[in-house]
Amino acid sequence: MRKVPRTRRGRETLVTIMEAALQEFGEKGFHEGSISEISRRANLAPGGIYNYFDSKDEIFRALVTDINVQFRDQIAAQVRTAADEMTAEKRVLETGINFVRQHKGIYRIVTEAEFIYPEGHRALYEALVERVGNRLRDGALSGEIRPDVGEIHAWAIIGINVMLALRYGVWAADEAPDRVSAVVNDMLKHGLNSRTT
Amino acid sequence: MRKVPRTRRGRETLVTIMEAALQEFGEKGFHEGSISEISRRANLAPGGIYNYFDSKDEIFRALVTDINVQFRDQIAAQVRTAADEMTAEKRVLETGINFVRQHKGIYRIVTEAEFIYPEGHRALYEALVERVGNRLRDGALSGEIRPDVGEIHAWAIIGINVMLALRYGVWAADEAPDRVSAVVNDMLKHGLNSRTT
Repeated sequence: MRKVPRTRRGRETLVTIMEAALQEFGEKGFHEGSISEISRRANLAPGGIYNYFDSKDEIFRALVTDINVQFRDQIAAQVRTAADEMTAEKRVLETGINFVRQHKGIYRIVTEAEFIYPEGHRALYEALVERVGNRLRDGALSGEIRPDVGEIHAWAIIGINVMLALRYGVWAADEAPDRVSAVVNDMLKHGLNSRTT
Repeated sequence: MRKVPRTRRGRETLVTIMEAALQEFGEKGFHEGSISEISRRANLAPGGIYNYFDSKDEIFRALVTDINVQFRDQIAAQVRTAADEMTAEKRVLETGINFVRQHKGIYRIVTEAEFIYPEGHRALYEALVERVGNRLRDGALSGEIRPDVGEIHAWAIIGINVMLALRYGVWAADEAPDRVSAVVNDMLKHGLNSRTT
């Protein structure tokens, strides 16, 4: 279990360790990443990291939890001021693509977590889907969104966001995030059927 | 590089090796999986596997390529007889969830390929997206689907299928695949907006 530092200095060191771990695992992955390299990146004396974490596994798990919180906060700021629920979804996708472009290592860590820390990986997705589901239900209550929305729709939206963050965030930046999110949002609002049919 | 066997017996052994590799990597993942265990599962004499593959890495890569071909063939059979393009998409998702339920190891291998064999992983997704894109364009030409469909829509559909296969195929079988695909298909056709707005 992550040890909670009692001093301000300790808490600052913990932040430094998490940043170093993000770089290390984000670049090399969990298997190639090492505690000694994380210590070096964080400028710690040998063994100092063990005042904070017992193992590489534990650092990785703390990182997945941190990413969950960090990403949630970034999204919350965007969602709060959206005029309606579908505009909120548009902003979430755009924020997600930009977030991944800025922190490519994060995408790798989250995907690898499926094998290294399956409960954390699943918790992250379930937290995302719960928030999307709540927004969809709010939209249904206000009459914006069809009344039969549910969990399957929420998972579908998460799937779109994860894949488009990979394609347009990690693999290639050949489309502007706001165009990607506009195209997807229009599809989500109106569907793919031709309007004449 | 995978060696191509010249005899029928050799080709049969290769099939047996691929099945053993699918079990081994599907259960244990790439890092924990071993060549000696694949040999044992395939009932080969020690060292016999090296008549076919030079390394664990090479077996894994051949497996990703095989999965690509196998899944493509399963889908093709479903798509060929669909009345229209959106019905084809519905069947693809349903087939995908069932496929993953029957072969849970495959999902793991494909996801892990992102790190072990990134080119193969990306080729697999690009092949999927090309086929979805072609179907969408055919639908646009016939007037079924809106004329502005493009690559972003195709990636969005792949994202939905991958996530829902994870959620309703690997994690829990708490919804029937044909219900999941029906809900998604209706969303893809008509969108989430309330019809009265």
